Amino acid sequence: MAWTDSTARNALRTLFDTAVAAADPRTVLAAHLPPKPARGRVIVVGGGKSAALMAAALEDAWPDVALEGTVVTRYGHAVPTQRIEVIEASHPVPDANSQKGAQRLLERVKGLTKDDLVIALMSGGASALLAAPAPGLTLADKQAINKALLACGANITEMNAVRKHLSAIKGGRLAAAAAPARVVTLAISDVPGDDPAVIGSGPTVPDATTFADARALIARYGITAPPAVAERLTQDRDETPKPGSLPLAEFRMIATPMMALEAMAAKARTLGLAPLILGDALEGEAAQVGTVLAGIARSVRAHGHPSKPPAVLLSGGETTVTMTGAANGKGGRNTTFLLGLAIALDGVPGIWACAGDTDGIDGMDEIAGALLTPDTLVRAKAAGRDARADLGRLDSHGFFGSVGDLIVTGPTLTNVNDIRAILIA
Amino acid sequence: MAWTDSTARNALRTLFDTAVAAADPRTVLAAHLPPKPARGRVIVVGGGKSAALMAAALEDAWPDVALEGTVVTRYGHAVPTQRIEVIEASHPVPDANSQKGAQRLLERVKGLTKDDLVIALMSGGASALLAAPAPGLTLADKQAINKALLACGANITEMNAVRKHLSAIKGGRLAAAAAPARVVTLAISDVPGDDPAVIGSGPTVPDATTFADARALIARYGITAPPAVAERLTQDRDETPKPGSLPLAEFRMIATPMMALEAMAAKARTLGLAPLILGDALEGEAAQVGTVLAGIARSVRAHGHPSKPPAVLLSGGETTVTMTGAANGKGGRNTTFLLGLAIALDGVPGIWACAGDTDGIDGMDEIAGALLTPDTLVRAKAAGRDARADLGRLDSHGFFGSVGDLIVTGPTLTNVNDIRAILIA
Repeated sequence: MAWTDSTARNALRTLFDTAVAAADPRTVLAAHLPPKPARGRVIVVGGGKSAALMAAALEDAWPDVALEGTVVTRYGHAVPTQRIEVIEASHPVPDANSQKGAQRLLERVKGLTKDDLVIALMSGGASALLAAPAPGLTLADKQAINKALLACGANITEMNAVRKHLSAIKGGRLAAAAAPARVVTLAISDVPGDDPAVIGSGPTVPDATTFADARALIARYGITAPPAVAERLTQDRDETPKPGSLPLAEFRMIATPMMALEAMAAKARTLGLAPLILGDALEGEAAQVGTVLAGIARSVRAHGHPSKPPAVLLSGGETTVTMTGAANGKGGRNTTFLLGLAIALDGVPGIWACAGDTDGIDGMDEIAGALLTPDTLVRAKAAGRDARADLGRLDSHGFFGSVGDLIVTGPTLTNVNDIRAILIA
Repeated sequence: MAWTDSTARNALRTLFDTAVAAADPRTVLAAHLPPKPARGRVIVVGGGKSAALMAAALEDAWPDVALEGTVVTRYGHAVPTQRIEVIEASHPVPDANSQKGAQRLLERVKGLTKDDLVIALMSGGASALLAAPAPGLTLADKQAINKALLACGANITEMNAVRKHLSAIKGGRLAAAAAPARVVTLAISDVPGDDPAVIGSGPTVPDATTFADARALIARYGITAPPAVAERLTQDRDETPKPGSLPLAEFRMIATPMMALEAMAAKARTLGLAPLILGDALEGEAAQVGTVLAGIARSVRAHGHPSKPPAVLLSGGETTVTMTGAANGKGGRNTTFLLGLAIALDGVPGIWACAGDTDGIDGMDEIAGALLTPDTLVRAKAAGRDARADLGRLDSHGFFGSVGDLIVTGPTLTNVNDIRAILIA
């Protein structure tokens, strides 16, 4: 087919919607469920920004099963459920409801038998939404150490090693509390590498780190821990479940960035586009990622490398937008990426693109992302916008809004991070 | 085969050497020559950093042809020739020899007949090395307007439109002066897009721009031109040869960044590596390009996208290194790219890389580039280096020198820009 502005736009919007659908538990959860148990209770627990939607999808999939349980999601992220209780709590800073919710989950899995099945529904945000301070600790203690960890330059793996040893639910403790019941975790990943132990700090996943590791980290970064925290970190006899020690816990990814990209690739083929997935966890400054991917797209057009057109370059992962003193606009990672891409492509014909956050929120506004066309720069200039100036002041929402090419989906209640598609006709 | 540190290193060094060989006129020039003329003279003219080596390659290819002519290369870039005169001149700022050289070329092509053949040997740097002010202008006039153009923010296409109308040799005038002889240009490209009109400002290539364009640009950027320049730009009757007006001039690329990458890809296949050429003109901040390509390499390893390992990701083009106040080290685009890549890969096993400038000079020192291995960070730390600190102060030569992984070739006397190869075992 000959690609026109309208067919290219429609194809890109279809690809974006395909990614969101591939991450929607109502679409993908049922296929990952274990067989319905012949006897015993079915307890549902969970946490994360998608927890309520996952619970609703489970209710739909198993209409005739006596489900019981509780999931904790972010304020505003609840959806109606019939059998599974939904608690809303604060994210990213935990509140009393986070603590109440985590406590409810631990109560739900207490006193089970080997005939019972626990289904744990995990998604991004669960770490903050499920806050259960270990014995002797308060939420304030955990918040104080969290703040110190964030400030000291520790990486996420190091922070989690400490957090898991201050929690009564993380680092596999929820699964341990459910013994001798079988635990099947269904998870949606929004983290690079899709490590089960990272999603929600792994309440149902064995923990390879130790109290000794946590103490060493506190010492290495010279952190002054609250006395209760320092005391807690000496409780080596209360170690988290180690790899191999949770034989009844099983972990299934139901949606990941790569699964969404592979769904986009399959859809692209039906649209007559050769898909190439560059990666599921691309990082870098958003506008610079735009510059680099522009070079790849230009090469597709000029040389047929790395793909022969008509082609679509797909990628996922979270770029970075570094705030500067000049920033006085609105924008997110995806529209900033597209603005960098627009400047680097400089109106080269035959290349369109879209980028968006699969959760529907690119930055602070309810804007998922935007579309880029070969004439975006010209149309924006006619609307009085200067691409370089708008990039300098980080006003990418304003820029793409001026040409009417924002993608607005509303919150999708799921998240496999950002996706980008560049169509080369 | 199982990839070891030593086989991976050897493969990458072989790929780098393959790229340089693919750009070496002694390897590639002969295949692009026209048939030896049956009668008439063969005049050789040319300019650029590779001009002398190209002349020597032509002498080798046609040992029994009575070649006569002159080429102009950069000081230190001459090689011995028998029949073709070599003049050395200054680059990037022209000097008296640049003017003398350009004059010699114009004399060489004067008074030819239709039986004569002119072979023009063009490579990067020819624009500065061949300086022939148009009638009424001095080299100082041209230098003054050049300085103003560089300062005003005009892009390379705009600057060339002005330059070509102030020159007696650029914008196709050399080919016009050679009429009625046939002119075959053999060129080595180091510019994104490989536009013949850009290499050396196209002395043998028709010029689509006009005196009116040049005047409009001077006006648009508010440049105060020296009186002789302003006067020259009104000489519309002396327009450059326009597209279609040089029917006897033929242009052949003998080496481009993409040709070098395709040679690397062919070599990679013989080494058991699946090659993927990401592009021949990738741009962006060097360290950021490292971060983005690290994401692609990680995806190859984790998911088999965009290639299944063992694979090699190939790319060319010129990244940017923006100097900051903190810069007090030594480094170039390629080693800075590799340092960014090293930090982003963070020692992930099974990934090696090399990057280098095919001219043998990455930055100011005689260092072509460097090799990155999975244990580079560990070895550098043992040698007392901090990767992030060295990136901050732009000391990538120091960093890779500390682990003995610099690539040193000496000046190669050719240039198809930078090449990068990332091997994923």
